[in-house]
Amino acid sequence: MTYAGFWVVFEGADGVGKTTQVDLLAAHLRSAAGGARDVLTTREPGGTPLGIELRQAIMHGDHVVPRAEALLYAADRAHHIGTKVRPALEAGTVVLQDRYLDSSVVYQGGARGLGDEVERISLWATEGMLPDLTIVLDMAPDPARMSRDLDRVERETIAKSEEMRQGFLARAALDPGRYAVIDAARPVESVHASVVEAVAAAMDRRDGIPLEPWGTP
Amino acid sequence: MTYAGFWVVFEGADGVGKTTQVDLLAAHLRSAAGGARDVLTTREPGGTPLGIELRQAIMHGDHVVPRAEALLYAADRAHHIGTKVRPALEAGTVVLQDRYLDSSVVYQGGARGLGDEVERISLWATEGMLPDLTIVLDMAPDPARMSRDLDRVERETIAKSEEMRQGFLARAALDPGRYAVIDAARPVESVHASVVEAVAAAMDRRDGIPLEPWGTP
Repeated sequence: MTYAGFWVVFEGADGVGKTTQVDLLAAHLRSAAGGARDVLTTREPGGTPLGIELRQAIMHGDHVVPRAEALLYAADRAHHIGTKVRPALEAGTVVLQDRYLDSSVVYQGGARGLGDEVERISLWATEGMLPDLTIVLDMAPDPARMSRDLDRVERETIAKSEEMRQGFLARAALDPGRYAVIDAARPVESVHASVVEAVAAAMDRRDGIPLEPWGTP
Repeated sequence: MTYAGFWVVFEGADGVGKTTQVDLLAAHLRSAAGGARDVLTTREPGGTPLGIELRQAIMHGDHVVPRAEALLYAADRAHHIGTKVRPALEAGTVVLQDRYLDSSVVYQGGARGLGDEVERISLWATEGMLPDLTIVLDMAPDPARMSRDLDRVERETIAKSEEMRQGFLARAALDPGRYAVIDAARPVESVHASVVEAVAAAMDRRDGIPLEPWGTP
């Protein structure tokens, strides 16, 4: 589908700074545009009242089987995109979103071993909606932690983090025109500058979205 | 998969008597078996604590978009089958279930226009688990109501009920070996007798399940 807005998704492991970068980019765009365009920040899961209920059901319910969990994320996504993101994009809003399809593919499809069907179901959930730009905030496991003597659980946690990280990088490599991989192991302001640059370039690439009045980094 | 138990699903429109027939069959099997085998009655949606939460989210949440609703039913199903029905069947229990896959196919796939993907997602949710027998309780729209002068809304409601009814009958016609269509427009005890007969015949057909000590109707 075509829409007047612009849709940026942030992906990456927990703790990599997605929420911070969403907020910084929102402030930058609001300021650069002089209030000329609406900017909406949102997240998955939990970007709608239904989504918050589902998130609680996943987190606090009895142990949820992996396929049920994947389907709950897909249901959250269908409702979030259908009732919030799509209408905002159609109204010309810039949507900045914390996590989307790639998180499901990497966590449920990859780590939980549910495979390609997770992506297929997610695309069905949203009628194939894909963001204009996905920013992967990339950070290697902490070298300070790596150098310590690690017990088995710590080693497994780091191995798992690295597996997730490689999952996001592999997604980005499949479709470089729609992804920007940004080194997130730098000061917040440096990461932010890279984010602004990537967003400006993506807006410039897309027909009908002028780089101005967004400004350049 | 193979299992020691036996799995019967009841399908059909609202108000056709599914819950009553589940309970009557459960009482009959418990009595006929002399307590030799466990009988579990359950339902979808809402057969687990998570399912009850999801059912409330569907019913009482803000308006849920159709694909999100279909995915919530599939999530309920994945969890219900994975944590309750499959373990019971593996333990040799006879499971009597109110609604399953066909309700989703007829209501979400058919009436909501979501098509074949609803069945595909449901089968993924349960890793392809299909009941030994599905009983469709069939009832034509009430002739007494049909003979009255009807307004437009009443005519549409009856047309919709008939469409759902034909949906269940079409599912049954696709795989007659796994379905029994029973005329539910008869006294409860007559319907029950037909149900017992159909279950006994299905158990007889399946290897390893003796008709005795279940008795015949």
